[in-house]
Amino acid sequence: MKYSESKDVMTPSGNRGPKTINIVLFGIGNVGGTLIKQIEEAQPRFLAKGLQIHIPVIANSNTAFFAKPNAEKGWEAGFKSFGFPQFIQDIFKFVKENELKNLIAVDATASADLVGEYFSLIENGFHIVSANKIANTLDVAFYTKLRDTLKKHHRRFLYETNVGAGLPVIETIKNLHDSGERITRIRGVFSGSLSYIFNRFSAEEKSFADILKEASENGYTEPDAREDLSGNDVARKLLILARELDLKREFEDVKVDSLIPTQLNGKTSVNEFKRRIDELNPTFENKKNQQAKGHVLRYVGELSVTEERLDVKLVSTPADSPLGQLKGADSLIEIYSDSYKKQPLVIQGAGAGKEVTARGVLGDIVKLAENLI
Amino acid sequence: MKYSESKDVMTPSGNRGPKTINIVLFGIGNVGGTLIKQIEEAQPRFLAKGLQIHIPVIANSNTAFFAKPNAEKGWEAGFKSFGFPQFIQDIFKFVKENELKNLIAVDATASADLVGEYFSLIENGFHIVSANKIANTLDVAFYTKLRDTLKKHHRRFLYETNVGAGLPVIETIKNLHDSGERITRIRGVFSGSLSYIFNRFSAEEKSFADILKEASENGYTEPDAREDLSGNDVARKLLILARELDLKREFEDVKVDSLIPTQLNGKTSVNEFKRRIDELNPTFENKKNQQAKGHVLRYVGELSVTEERLDVKLVSTPADSPLGQLKGADSLIEIYSDSYKKQPLVIQGAGAGKEVTARGVLGDIVKLAENLI
Ligand SMILES: NC(=O)c1ccc[n+]([C@@H]2O[C@H](COP(=O)([O-])OP(=O)(O)OC[C@H]3O[C@@H](n4cnc5c(N)ncnc54)[C@H](OP(=O)(O)O)[C@@H]3O)[C@@H](O)[C@H]2O)c1
Ligand SMILES: NC(=O)c1ccc[n+]([C@@H]2O[C@H](COP(=O)([O-])OP(=O)(O)OC[C@H]3O[C@@H](n4cnc5c(N)ncnc54)[C@H](OP(=O)(O)O)[C@@H]3O)[C@@H](O)[C@H]2O)c1
Repeated sequence: MKYSESKDVMTPSGNRGPKTINIVLFGIGNVGGTLIKQIEEAQPRFLAKGLQIHIPVIANSNTAFFAKPNAEKGWEAGFKSFGFPQFIQDIFKFVKENELKNLIAVDATASADLVGEYFSLIENGFHIVSANKIANTLDVAFYTKLRDTLKKHHRRFLYETNVGAGLPVIETIKNLHDSGERITRIRGVFSGSLSYIFNRFSAEEKSFADILKEASENGYTEPDAREDLSGNDVARKLLILARELDLKREFEDVKVDSLIPTQLNGKTSVNEFKRRIDELNPTFENKKNQQAKGHVLRYVGELSVTEERLDVKLVSTPADSPLGQLKGADSLIEIYSDSYKKQPLVIQGAGAGKEVTARGVLGDIVKLAENLI
Repeated sequence: MKYSESKDVMTPSGNRGPKTINIVLFGIGNVGGTLIKQIEEAQPRFLAKGLQIHIPVIANSNTAFFAKPNAEKGWEAGFKSFGFPQFIQDIFKFVKENELKNLIAVDATASADLVGEYFSLIENGFHIVSANKIANTLDVAFYTKLRDTLKKHHRRFLYETNVGAGLPVIETIKNLHDSGERITRIRGVFSGSLSYIFNRFSAEEKSFADILKEASENGYTEPDAREDLSGNDVARKLLILARELDLKREFEDVKVDSLIPTQLNGKTSVNEFKRRIDELNPTFENKKNQQAKGHVLRYVGELSVTEERLDVKLVSTPADSPLGQLKGADSLIEIYSDSYKKQPLVIQGAGAGKEVTARGVLGDIVKLAENLI
């Protein structure tokens, strides 16, 4: 499993050649697969900036593929023919034998097992870039231990795509907070699927169930749409933001108004839920009719620092407000602080989707790479 | 001019004490003065993150003050009593004698002279954080030489506040571009003062001149409001963004529709301009009346990458569009790209003011500090 990597060369101007970054990619689904494509396409731009991004190891849940640098295009074929059963120790052995430097483990999975390996990855010299929300939403003890381990080993952990996909939400909030700004409130539509559903439900005459069905058919929701409707994903994002503000909150501290009627909760099968989906209609029809004129429904997450509350809830908001103006599957995040008081700092745009998410992961990789030698 | 700095100490846990950053601050006006205050107030948060930010040197255009660390509060008194005539060589001598490390020169001036000293600052080991737009809007030859010098000396140059003050505009555009995203168009309201003026002019019955007068009285415009109305400041911001996308454009490449009628241009004195300010009214009254129903006027900057155009112009836009919804003195920047195609990535909020600008400068300092040893 050893290969000889081309050494950095001296360019005619006397500068050293490009800086090489080695990525071990976990997960080759929507996000991971798109990321490989984006990295291949962006090589000319990286090279122009003095950067060479290799992906020497690509893994899914059971197979790991050790790629030769500069191999002919098309990692998929190699993955199928030359993959090994995936054991993390083999990966550590491989990077050591090949003396790979500037190591970044990219987590494009939703796996808790992999998160369990973060500590050994860090101890083996890896920085971590993750689209996976699990590491940041386990309990505070885990959260703190992870950060202590990173500090001890001088490794970094970036996860901009955990909230709002490619939108610069986490970096903005962290940087404001770290530079002493007092953030008082963060509020927004954090779920692309629920944004899509309520934007249409408010604007059209169709029933809630019909719009939900269309959203599922168009791939906007999880296979079991109740994972979106439960509000838990929004709650996780809110928790991640709260912790950026040094608030040591737990998942249970988030008050979540689930959109699933009790008779259709987890005890019913997915198929039965789909069959009885029309039972959702009366609740939402009522809510729509009860609101003030010119108002629309939005499913928001809200973190009030001053009131120490984390809420996920359905609200009625003026149609001509920024939240009311939301379109498509866009997310919108408002940040209120001492300096952004009356009018918040607002970040808005596609908050889900494999293209923007993979680009966000790549953005983290590039940021990290800039600060490696 | 020598003082002994407290050495980093070992904390009980065995970790090294806080990392010390030394700032030489040029400019103590709106932005620089507020920055000192913000740094003093944020010390507890910095310390909690293992950071100690000192400002050993504070300078305005003629005086430099060499501060003792941990001196009693109130640099202003010291500045007056113990200031020296400002010579850059004295500053270099001071930091060398006192072996100050992790040096950041902060440019909170609008001075071209200081920009001329950037090269010697870099050669003397300084990173640079700047609110001053001049270095990024001189010709391409200067722009390139500055970046080459930074690279050679492994120094960084951050200037987030050059566009949109504290809003994360430059970092977002740079990171998207550097990670291979194809940005096709950037459009927005870049001027806080002109945002304020047109937001009110579109919503109220008052004349343009009356609103301009009130804007001036409330400190929203430059002392000579024609500096805002000329569109040159917006043009500079657009040029800075174009260059982030590796487009080697010059200031002359920006097509600017100035809002100043020819008979009131630079040849007239400020006082005469103020006296004849009502002459502005017919033009804007006409523009207001000629637009479609439900539209409002906005003064925008637009960079079309695909059409290779940089335009600063007055446009008529639907009142219920994001641009049309703009309030107060907010800026709004839309980024269109391959992934943000139909609906752009939008960043919105206060785009001027000493509090948000100083905080943005401090944000750059904190980002830089994170990557220093
Ligand atoms: N899609 C979005 O819009 C979006 C936005 C923000 C964040 N995210 C997050 O990004 C992550 C990936 O999302 P996705 O849509 O790409 O998921 P996906 O299409 O289901 O792909 C998941 C991938 O992870 C692999 N995997 C699972 N366990 C693994 C393990 N222990 N080691 C290595 N690989 C493992 C899977 O391999 P197998 O095929 O072998 O199971 C699969 O290749 C999730 O955490 C998601 O929440 C997604
Ligand atoms: N205010 C905003 O909202 C905002 C937003 C974004 C960017 N900015 C930019 O931030 C910069 C500062 O703005 P400001 O409003 O703080 O300006 P300001 O209040 O006029 O202050 C300028 C300061 O710079 C000093 N100075 C001038 N030349 C100098 C030199 N060669 N060396 C050292 N100090 C020098 C001045 O000293 P003297 O008093 O001795 O002349 C003064 O202390 C400008 O470039 C501006 O465009 C401002």
